[in-house]
Amino acid sequence: MSELGRMPGIGQKSAERLAHYVLRLPHDEAMQLATAIRNVKQNVNYCSICCNIGETDPCHICGDHRRDHKKVCVVEQPKDLFTIEKAGFYEGVYHVLSGHIDPLENVDPEDINIDKLVDRARNNGIQEVIIATNPNLEGDVTAMYILEQLEPLGVKVTQLARGMPSGSYLEYANSAVIADAIHGRKSIQKD
Amino acid sequence: MSELGRMPGIGQKSAERLAHYVLRLPHDEAMQLATAIRNVKQNVNYCSICCNIGETDPCHICGDHRRDHKKVCVVEQPKDLFTIEKAGFYEGVYHVLSGHIDPLENVDPEDINIDKLVDRARNNGIQEVIIATNPNLEGDVTAMYILEQLEPLGVKVTQLARGMPSGSYLEYANSAVIADAIHGRKSIQKD
Repeated sequence: MSELGRMPGIGQKSAERLAHYVLRLPHDEAMQLATAIRNVKQNVNYCSICCNIGETDPCHICGDHRRDHKKVCVVEQPKDLFTIEKAGFYEGVYHVLSGHIDPLENVDPEDINIDKLVDRARNNGIQEVIIATNPNLEGDVTAMYILEQLEPLGVKVTQLARGMPSGSYLEYANSAVIADAIHGRKSIQKD
Repeated sequence: MSELGRMPGIGQKSAERLAHYVLRLPHDEAMQLATAIRNVKQNVNYCSICCNIGETDPCHICGDHRRDHKKVCVVEQPKDLFTIEKAGFYEGVYHVLSGHIDPLENVDPEDINIDKLVDRARNNGIQEVIIATNPNLEGDVTAMYILEQLEPLGVKVTQLARGMPSGSYLEYANSAVIADAIHGRKSIQKD
């Protein structure tokens, strides 16, 4: 039960409930659950190209020839990649950093997959690197460091647009969002 | 008490609590509260230039000669203006529409202060109109209508940047926000 309780979002009460659920499961189903957990650990690896998690190497995105391999979107974590994939229109490939630069937590550039990104950019004819780190201090520091590494290679480096989130209301926006939205304003024309 | 209960965010319970509070107030303070409410209604008017609420006409923003009167930020409501003012760096003036175009609610362009904006743009040498309607369907419809009215006058029309809100996390962004952020991505250079 203490093992269950160590999972994120599972407190002691939930862990108890889950433990009782497992106890009530038929033997077969409990074994299936155990096997599934073992399989995840044994079969899921990091893609040697983009560092995403997957059951194959290269992963199903890096191995997909219909995608645009000249465009690489850099994200902090696999969950960020899933968020962009779910939006369903990005046709390029990815690079997963597995973290962000954070001097306060002793995470240096060498600790995340930046060197691999630079190698990819140097050797694989990448045209554009889209930095999609989180729009906060650590994400921006990481973005700036990546920019410094890629600029000498002549790769175009872009960053996600910052501004008002679609579907929101101005009155609830904080000053940082308002500042981004006004500074980043765009001319509009009739379609 | 039913009068108190009609105020936004005040349910029956809160109205009861407020009514008891008023009953317990010393006579003077209760009269002060009543006077304050009467004064708001009597003294607060709409600015004849920007249609914002204020105690003077022109309002304190339109009457401020240190502000850039060639740049007009168009908002739906006074509360949106306050949000931008609170951010503390916008140096232009405003135009308050007092609503947005909404055919489903029978709000037509004539029902909000668009004509006044067009008059301002035609007669007062405005260089840029920054449309800061809410980033949703009604706000965008209103923005497009305003653009159509202003384009023939040769006024530059811009709109607030749309994208990831600063300080947020990619994993919690919905698909519309991700789409805005990727489509609106910008080249970055070292400062």
